[in-house]
Amino acid sequence: MANTTLTSAIPAINADAMLEHWQGHRRLTRKMIETFPENELFTHSVAGMRPFAGLVMEMLRIAAGGIHGIVGGNWNAHKRFSWYGENDTPPATKKELLEAWDEVTAELDANWPKITEERFQEQLHAFGNESWAGPAYSIIQYFVDNEIHHRGQGYVYLRSLGITPPGFWERW
Amino acid sequence: MANTTLTSAIPAINADAMLEHWQGHRRLTRKMIETFPENELFTHSVAGMRPFAGLVMEMLRIAAGGIHGIVGGNWNAHKRFSWYGENDTPPATKKELLEAWDEVTAELDANWPKITEERFQEQLHAFGNESWAGPAYSIIQYFVDNEIHHRGQGYVYLRSLGITPPGFWERW
Repeated sequence: MANTTLTSAIPAINADAMLEHWQGHRRLTRKMIETFPENELFTHSVAGMRPFAGLVMEMLRIAAGGIHGIVGGNWNAHKRFSWYGENDTPPATKKELLEAWDEVTAELDANWPKITEERFQEQLHAFGNESWAGPAYSIIQYFVDNEIHHRGQGYVYLRSLGITPPGFWERW
Repeated sequence: MANTTLTSAIPAINADAMLEHWQGHRRLTRKMIETFPENELFTHSVAGMRPFAGLVMEMLRIAAGGIHGIVGGNWNAHKRFSWYGENDTPPATKKELLEAWDEVTAELDANWPKITEERFQEQLHAFGNESWAGPAYSIIQYFVDNEIHHRGQGYVYLRSLGITPPGFWERW
């Protein structure tokens, strides 16, 4: 997480725009899940890396636990997915994965307005880990960046299957 | 680019934090360039995709032209790199690529403070393209996201070469 020293108070991105940016990326990731063939979603790998469903599970754990931690400090508040996965009931089909995705989409929308102006700037430890320190906004940026990073790897997986991925700009 | 309707005025990320986020990602991408073997940087491909140096050239064109366009509306103001590459003198070695990267790093730092509070919210067309419309902040987000996306693909390239990439959190 960034340890930014803030010297300029010019606002650049507000709370609504930040959520829209995240959800736009999540809509694209959803298209990626849909684009993968059912079997390859859970099995196809390049260079020994995790299959795309495994990367998606990481995104789900981060978003589901993350929003509750950002809002109220309880990083294990999500009923289904936890950071370490100990309580996970991982989706086993594309349909189940998409349903879980949509559940978390709704939870982000419902909880986002609870983040106060002060909270965005508050120093937090993501998932309670001392090494993952930074202002709340930078932790959220990390969540989104992590999704873009792993989804980019999914693009290579699809290309290696001879399948054209959705355009990077398709955030609707 | 996002076409966000702003309904909440809560500021979440300010101008300095946004630059620090971008430059942090650029430091990680620089580590990736350094990590690639000289030859494979320009030749290695997975699934027929561009070699990492080709992806890095796209990042350089976007950042170099982009910062001038964001500041003053002239997307072709960069002396060396243009969006369509017609004036490019592409770096041919890792050393030249890193030098070009560092030049653009300094240009971002030098020009960023010229972006006014109003400009961040102004509707622009990135690189003059009618299809790439959005408030300036969302265009900058797209630039950074595009770098994360393609760099994530570079991670797969390195893994396929049996090389461990730098940690995704290494933004220093």
